[in-house]
Amino acid sequence: MSDQPSDSTPLRFRRWEQRTEVPLFGASLLFLLGYAVRVLAPHDAEPWHGLALALVGATWLVFAADYVVRLRLSGLGHRFIRVHWLDTVVLLLPLLRPLRLIRVYSAVQQRRERPRLSLYARVITYAGATALLLGFSAALAVYHQEHAAKGASIRTFGDAVWWACETLTTVGYGDAVPVTAGGRVVASGLMACGLALLGAVTGSFSSWLLQVFTREDEKRPPKGG
Amino acid sequence: MSDQPSDSTPLRFRRWEQRTEVPLFGASLLFLLGYAVRVLAPHDAEPWHGLALALVGATWLVFAADYVVRLRLSGLGHRFIRVHWLDTVVLLLPLLRPLRLIRVYSAVQQRRERPRLSLYARVITYAGATALLLGFSAALAVYHQEHAAKGASIRTFGDAVWWACETLTTVGYGDAVPVTAGGRVVASGLMACGLALLGAVTGSFSSWLLQVFTREDEKRPPKGG
Amino acid sequence: MSDQPSDSTPLRFRRWEQRTEVPLFGASLLFLLGYAVRVLAPHDAEPWHGLALALVGATWLVFAADYVVRLRLSGLGHRFIRVHWLDTVVLLLPLLRPLRLIRVYSAVQQRRERPRLSLYARVITYAGATALLLGFSAALAVYHQEHAAKGASIRTFGDAVWWACETLTTVGYGDAVPVTAGGRVVASGLMACGLALLGAVTGSFSSWLLQVFTREDEKRPPKGG
Amino acid sequence: MSDQPSDSTPLRFRRWEQRTEVPLFGASLLFLLGYAVRVLAPHDAEPWHGLALALVGATWLVFAADYVVRLRLSGLGHRFIRVHWLDTVVLLLPLLRPLRLIRVYSAVQQRRERPRLSLYARVITYAGATALLLGFSAALAVYHQEHAAKGASIRTFGDAVWWACETLTTVGYGDAVPVTAGGRVVASGLMACGLALLGAVTGSFSSWLLQVFTREDEKRPPKGG
Repeated sequence: MSDQPSDSTPLRFRRWEQRTEVPLFGASLLFLLGYAVRVLAPHDAEPWHGLALALVGATWLVFAADYVVRLRLSGLGHRFIRVHWLDTVVLLLPLLRPLRLIRVYSAVQQRRERPRLSLYARVITYAGATALLLGFSAALAVYHQEHAAKGASIRTFGDAVWWACETLTTVGYGDAVPVTAGGRVVASGLMACGLALLGAVTGSFSSWLLQVFTREDEKRPPKGG
Repeated sequence: MSDQPSDSTPLRFRRWEQRTEVPLFGASLLFLLGYAVRVLAPHDAEPWHGLALALVGATWLVFAADYVVRLRLSGLGHRFIRVHWLDTVVLLLPLLRPLRLIRVYSAVQQRRERPRLSLYARVITYAGATALLLGFSAALAVYHQEHAAKGASIRTFGDAVWWACETLTTVGYGDAVPVTAGGRVVASGLMACGLALLGAVTGSFSSWLLQVFTREDEKRPPKGG
Repeated sequence: MSDQPSDSTPLRFRRWEQRTEVPLFGASLLFLLGYAVRVLAPHDAEPWHGLALALVGATWLVFAADYVVRLRLSGLGHRFIRVHWLDTVVLLLPLLRPLRLIRVYSAVQQRRERPRLSLYARVITYAGATALLLGFSAALAVYHQEHAAKGASIRTFGDAVWWACETLTTVGYGDAVPVTAGGRVVASGLMACGLALLGAVTGSFSSWLLQVFTREDEKRPPKGG
Repeated sequence: MSDQPSDSTPLRFRRWEQRTEVPLFGASLLFLLGYAVRVLAPHDAEPWHGLALALVGATWLVFAADYVVRLRLSGLGHRFIRVHWLDTVVLLLPLLRPLRLIRVYSAVQQRRERPRLSLYARVITYAGATALLLGFSAALAVYHQEHAAKGASIRTFGDAVWWACETLTTVGYGDAVPVTAGGRVVASGLMACGLALLGAVTGSFSSWLLQVFTREDEKRPPKGG
């Protein structure tokens, strides 16, 4: 919301965003892939470890370059960091970058004439895709922090995925729990997102029902005559 | 939603669906019964074990035959698998088939003149019936996976039902938790459904309240005159 | 909802209900008090134990008498059991009777001219009162089932109240969990109610926000002129 | 809601409230700071311990003085305690005082001409700020009660913050759980607030979606013509 380009945004800035959106989304998926290989591959599995590190570094440099170009094009100077604070956060935590997929969808949609899915279907699709991406990223990060910690209950990547499932749905059995400070910070972020996803699913269902009801109401003749 | 027959669906296809809906629902309940007997009966309890296996196999063949007939009648060819992907999933996971009961209800309803229940009552009834069927199926599947596993906390079918209750309501005490990979996959599905049920209950309550409020508002004369 | 008296209900039936509503609510609170004393008093604490048992028995006889009178007055015969199934359930599980307080409120309200609270305040007040009564009753019933069971984690009434809190809010730490079959049945009921309460709170908040927003929207002149 | 000044409130009372709102909010933050230092500093860390105690005492006296002045100005006499019961609760539990920040925001907003944020942004901002303040206060209070208790699982302030996160989001793993009566009372309050926050997030999301949909609906020409 706070990230929407307003009418005063320079045209070159907007054109840059439209052109780079899809390639940058691809780069963010590559980043996720590189991070996954680095975390999941055994420590002595050269050359995969080295290649993954190179991929992570290279994609991050691409993100940094894009950030600098947009800072220049925006004509905002230092205020860019504050106005586009979400971009700044995503630059520092590139694992969150794939969540920009909603903007990719919008960018792709603008080239077509009309959206193919209803609003509710779009919200539910986006919530589902977000849950998958977030859960996978969080499972990777928590596995990275936890798997070698003392007294950890998350020892394999399977445990980490299971933990992400029970956390995102706010079930929280407690059989797999992060014990390190880093793991708990990641977990707190995932819990907050779980709450937001719950709100999205509940909210879209609720509005859909309300709309269905209103239509049924209009079809029927009013009781009083 | 994506499963609604559109106007371009051949008439023969629609007529087939209307005629087979109720018998197929009966078959899906027989499938559930057969699966329950197979899972819950002691391993040496012949002839029940053999009979249950035969029932499961026969009903699944009925589902497969229906799928093939509808693939032919639809006139979609290979695209049928993609367009009706929900049917494809249900063919591979027949335990989910009883959830089609909402379509059975609609089919039965069309023969009568007007629905007997309001929209809210229908949503709440369907959510309740779904919760019961899903919980029972998931408890069966998890008990099947877990009861002989090493270090399992779900050892009896009572434990499995208790686990399904605390999972569907997202309470998640953690005293009964699946430990096998298969059990955890079933559990993840049940958690996602628990979230959706929560959304359904919250959403219908919310729209009901809004409607009540709107009516009360209309009865009262406006404040300003 | 299904319990609302329709226009075809005999006048004597409706008059009986209006007159007995408040005294019967008092009797249901006495039943709760008697049950609480019976469960919480030490086993050798005569005469309290005997008195509490007498109170429970006497109030239940009052409920049964009311049920029989209403069955006669309704003129429905055997169908009364099915039409007023909620009353039948409450007769068998009298601990749920205090939840009828919403009807007491309505009965008291009808004597006054207009409601003192807005719809949202009423929903939140009722949800809060329901949560308190349900939590207290469930804590009593679970303590009754669990406190002497082998391997129980709910050993004092304080533990039972704490368990009711974490269950109604769907937090579910798992430090206090019922282990007997009876305790688990009570717990499943409480979980389902927790879900409904969550729906009520969320739903009323959601509709309240929507109403506030609509009013703000109407105050502002439309953008397009 | 019940705290809104009505038209019959004396002018002097309203003027007092408008003038003292912002300074009192500062005092409530000082109270929180003093309490945090008192709880978190080691017991022999003089002079911090003494200073923090003095700060807590002084700010509480300011709150008490404000309460007495408002009781006098309101012209309600003893009824003030009942009518403004929320103020009475906050006087006895001053840790809840920072939550009045919504009134501070309104007070600041009235001096400007129009709000800077939309209703949804305001609800989400307030829910987020409330969650942070509540979580921090509850973590302090629970750490205070628990850290020296026998058999406690909350031993460091980090554990207490982690516990507050999993409680507010209703995840509830159960790896950190209060065991003292005082800690459980604080926890029950936090759980209830977690439920309300969930309602706020879900509700605002739901109404936002409904509004977006209504606008989209108005743009499109109606199907029937």
